[in-house]
Amino acid sequence: MEEDNKYHAHTSADGAEFTHCHEEGQPHAHKNTKVVLNRLSRAIGHLESVKRMVSEGRDCSEVLVQLSAVISALNSTGKVIIKDHIENCIVEAVESGDRKAIDDLNHAIDRFIK
Amino acid sequence: MEEDNKYHAHTSADGAEFTHCHEEGQPHAHKNTKVVLNRLSRAIGHLESVKRMVSEGRDCSEVLVQLSAVISALNSTGKVIIKDHIENCIVEAVESGDRKAIDDLNHAIDRFIK
Repeated sequence: MEEDNKYHAHTSADGAEFTHCHEEGQPHAHKNTKVVLNRLSRAIGHLESVKRMVSEGRDCSEVLVQLSAVISALNSTGKVIIKDHIENCIVEAVESGDRKAIDDLNHAIDRFIK
Repeated sequence: MEEDNKYHAHTSADGAEFTHCHEEGQPHAHKNTKVVLNRLSRAIGHLESVKRMVSEGRDCSEVLVQLSAVISALNSTGKVIIKDHIENCIVEAVESGDRKAIDDLNHAIDRFIK
């Protein structure tokens, strides 16, 4: 029964069901959740400055270099999320035979790595 | 003299000089500047929602799929910027023999396309 509590279904705002691994009553936090949140905040700030550059009419090549930096930062943030997910949820999922978590990750990786 | 006005140097907030192509007194706007600004705004909103998903503890695979969507959107925004730049500044730069604009674009593309 305790095992069941780790992988329970949720319904998101759009009505889709999703599952994730956490102890009952605990938020789904990984070791690097704070790192991921900080990186996303920085990327948002960086993107705001790219937008400002475009509206100020700054040189396109300069805008592209900054946009590339944001994309690289988001790619490496994605890698942190994948590694954290593997360390936490996937190891637990394999141990408890939860095939869906593995299929979901493979699907996400297919989309993430082009 | 009119040709000189099109490519004049500016000094950005950080003190770096940059050049861009526009008629004197006109902002450096391309055909798709508004499209680019709208796409950047949407990407910022989307990234805010990814951040919310992470802080709410939503499933990592779901977060990754949304993060991939933001990265794809930024990549295609970069393509719009490159194409617009080629249509406008680069055509003018070639016509006026401005080698720097071409070198700058090549450098930016090197960073953008990995």
